[in-house]
Order: sequence, then structure tokens, then C-alpha cells
Amino acid sequence: MSVAKPIQLSQHSAEDPSVSPAAARRLIRAGIHTSHTAGMALGRLQGNLAILPKDLALEFAIFCHRNPKPCPVVAMTAPGDPMLPDMGDDVDIRTDAPSYNVYRDGELSETVSDISALWQDDYVGFVLGCSFSFEDALMKAGIGLRHIETGATVPMYATNIPCRPVGAFTGNTVCSMRPMKPSDALKAIEITSRFKAAHGAPLHIGDPSAIGIKDVMAPDWGDAVEIREGEIPVFWACGVTPQLVLQNARPPICITHTPGAMLIGDGLSDAVSMRWSA
Amino acid sequence: MSVAKPIQLSQHSAEDPSVSPAAARRLIRAGIHTSHTAGMALGRLQGNLAILPKDLALEFAIFCHRNPKPCPVVAMTAPGDPMLPDMGDDVDIRTDAPSYNVYRDGELSETVSDISALWQDDYVGFVLGCSFSFEDALMKAGIGLRHIETGATVPMYATNIPCRPVGAFTGNTVCSMRPMKPSDALKAIEITSRFKAAHGAPLHIGDPSAIGIKDVMAPDWGDAVEIREGEIPVFWACGVTPQLVLQNARPPICITHTPGAMLIGDGLSDAVSMRWSA
Repeated sequence: MSVAKPIQLSQHSAEDPSVSPAAARRLIRAGIHTSHTAGMALGRLQGNLAILPKDLALEFAIFCHRNPKPCPVVAMTAPGDPMLPDMGDDVDIRTDAPSYNVYRDGELSETVSDISALWQDDYVGFVLGCSFSFEDALMKAGIGLRHIETGATVPMYATNIPCRPVGAFTGNTVCSMRPMKPSDALKAIEITSRFKAAHGAPLHIGDPSAIGIKDVMAPDWGDAVEIREGEIPVFWACGVTPQLVLQNARPPICITHTPGAMLIGDGLSDAVSMRWSA
Repeated sequence: MSVAKPIQLSQHSAEDPSVSPAAARRLIRAGIHTSHTAGMALGRLQGNLAILPKDLALEFAIFCHRNPKPCPVVAMTAPGDPMLPDMGDDVDIRTDAPSYNVYRDGELSETVSDISALWQDDYVGFVLGCSFSFEDALMKAGIGLRHIETGATVPMYATNIPCRPVGAFTGNTVCSMRPMKPSDALKAIEITSRFKAAHGAPLHIGDPSAIGIKDVMAPDWGDAVEIREGEIPVFWACGVTPQLVLQNARPPICITHTPGAMLIGDGLSDAVSMRWSA
């Protein structure tokens, strides 16, 4: 009778950037990997970035608190301190995303792979949750996501759902859309309700025109995806919202990650449902 | 055959401060009610207050984000704007708590029923969740709370559980303790896990010395309560934590509610479990 061996992580997993978040960040910090992070450190939390001077950071923090679905804050740096203890051991917001967009007065001015030279002692960094986490959970639950199945980018729409404004930060909510059968939609609502730090439950279900979308087959960002007979479009708040809100505010300087090139944390992707745990 | 009438709210409930949060706040704003809020607007959310100048408010917001169990932020004002839209219609942080403690350089300097004269255009107010909400839910679930049954104040203890420091804000976590049978403790953990904005799940269960408490019958605040044979002490993070942390930081000025005299919101008490909902 053979005895089953206990399942072990690969001996190489600590060094494999597709598995190890630390290995992925090492490649990124060294400037060896400077593009998108899909497929890196599978199953780990990836976050969007926003970096602002202290004066604007307070209003942005309050804005995010009042608009938690489009702007779920996973972690913040202390003012001037580039480290992100909530994201893992030795995570430096200046070097650990593959690519950064620098906006001056609301306009993209440069794209760089390291912001150490730009960092100032009044900067505050925000990590915002993204839909990767909940999409992973939906697929594990057997819910097909058409944009992934067809190799497309999820369709995203400007809506008429206003964010609750704070100071200079104002704008409408951008929503992503995933078409589903009603039974899958119900399951998806139940699952994403738990993912409070990854946009949470949907903002709308059904008629796109009810949230100001004129043509659901003409998204404002991403690719159109087919809505089949018997399917219902399900709309989630989207991380493009804070990007637009930041651009609207036209701060003298603001740094974000380059879309797709996210910050990888040590935490498990589905740990974002646990945001409030100590 | 008689037809049951639909259940209706009392015609007077809109004017009854034990039922209506707006009526309770009107009495408070007019300076007619200046003491504790227990028994007012039953079933509505009550919150602790902290008001700080803008410079310190950013670090305090980050501190709360990193320490969500002792410091669950329910709402924030925009800088200089005293209104709290997240707490309800027409809620003014300057007038709508019955009593305020004003601390200067970390020392209590005065207690007032209105802070309009002190308000400055760089002040930011925080509303922090409190244990009222989850205690209500525990009692509805049939779990006896000894301190309430005996008319005592819940026992609270300085522990050795450090808060994650941010700037000037640092200190250990204060915990409240409720003794329970193991079966009730399990139920209580399950229930309070949902109350993310009211301290959430416990921080510790069992041996008090494991979190630095020398004598569980000698609490640092509140009253000792009996732990009976077969019961287990259950420890939750407590709202005294941010008060101590604020005093430790010795800001030039900081305003809190006077303990027991809280800000009453329009939301249902158990809506704090829904904090992240839009």
C-alpha cells in the first residue's frame, strides 16, 4: 500500500515570479520586468496605485471613504514614507510597480519604471483594490466571464451615477459590465458582496440606459462583448473612476501605475474580502 | 373575517427622540439635551467623534485605516466642512453631539455642548463605530451580556497588542471583555465578524495574560464582571484605543465627544455591517 506524500510547494516557488510575490517584485524593482503583471504571483493581491502630495491626499482619502465601491483603499503609505506594510514585507511604492504614469496638471507627462527620483517627503501613496480578485473568485465558482473567454478587455462605461464629491475630487462612476444568466448573476452578486476591497457588489443590473449608457455595444473603454439571449448585463464600479477623478482635479502632480502594470502584494487575492481584519 | 391592518409607525415617532434620530438631534442641537445618548433613537447608529486640524487628520486617517478593529471609521467630514452626509440628512458635527471634550496638548481643557465657536476651516471630523451596534445584535441573538444585566460598564483593559503606528499616532490596543459560554462565544464571533465598522470580530479569546492583562478582575476602565465556571473571556478592540492614541500624540488641539454622549446618525445600528455598501 502506497502512502500519499503530503502536497508540497515547489522547491523553486520562492524564486518563481509566477508563484512568488517577492520574486516578482525583485524582478520589477531591478527594472528587469517593466510591463503588465498578468500571470505574475498567481493568486496574490494586485493593486492600483495613486500617489499625491499630502495636501490633496487627505481630500482623496475622504473621497475614497465616501465612494468605497469605485475606490476601495487596500493600503496607504504614511506621508513621505514609501513603504507599504499592509501589502507585505519590504514593499516600496517607488520601485515595486513595473511602470508608472506621471500626470502634471491632469495631463500625462511621462511614463517611468521607477519614481525614486520624483519621490518627495510629502507624498502619500494609495493602493486601491481591483477586479482581478473577484473575477478569480467568480471563475472558481464556475461562472464564465465572456471578456476573458474571448481574450478581450472588459467593457467599461461612463455612467450617470455621481460619485459623492469631496473638494476638488468629483465625477461620475465608471462601470465595467459582465453579461450573465440570471442564475449566475445571483451567484456573482453573492460572491462579490464579500469582496468589499475589490469593488464589492454590483452597482446596477439590467437596463444600461437606467445608468446613462446609450449603447452597451459601444463601451467608452475596453472591448464590446456580446450579451446573449436570456443574459442580463451586470455592472460593477470600476477602477477607472479614481483615475478620471484624479485627472478632473488637475493636481500639480499625481502618479499612478501604468494600466495593467500593478503593484503585487504578499496577501492572497481573496484576502481583500477580509480588509477589516486586523 | 377581519383584515389585519398593515403595521404603521406611530404618528408621533417622527417627533419622539427615543425613536427619531432627527428629533433626538434637534433636542441636542438646541442645547436642551446635553448628556448621554443611551435610550435615544433606539436602533440607530451612534458614533464616537474625533476632530483634528487637517495636518494631523491625514496621519490619523492612515492610522485608522491600518488599525480598523480599534478605529473603524464610519464617516469623515471634508476639511473645514462640518457636515456629515454619511451620517444622515443635515448632521452637523459642531452641534449634534450632546457634549464635547476639548483637549489641548493632550490634556482635557474644557467640556462644552457646542463647538461652533471653536470650529476652524482646517478641521476634519471622524465618526468611529462603537460597540453599541454589535451588543444590540448579540442580545437579539439571545446572548446574555453580563455587564448590561448587572448595570455595570463593560470592563476595559490596556493590553500588550500594539497598534500599527503612523507618525505621532502610536499606542497599544485597549480591549473590552465579555464572558461567555463557549457556544455563545462562537455565535458572538460569527455575528461580530459582520460588524466591521463596530470593532468586528474579537482580538483574543481565553487566557487574559496572553495579551498582557495581569488581573482580569481589575480592569483599567469600567467595572469588573464575574467570569463563571465554564465561561471564557472574549476580548474585542475598544474605542478607548483611539482616545489614548490621540492623547499620546499631544496635538495642540483635538476635540472628542464626551464619553457616552455620542453622535446619533440616521442609519440603522446594524447597517454598520454594511459600511462598504455604496
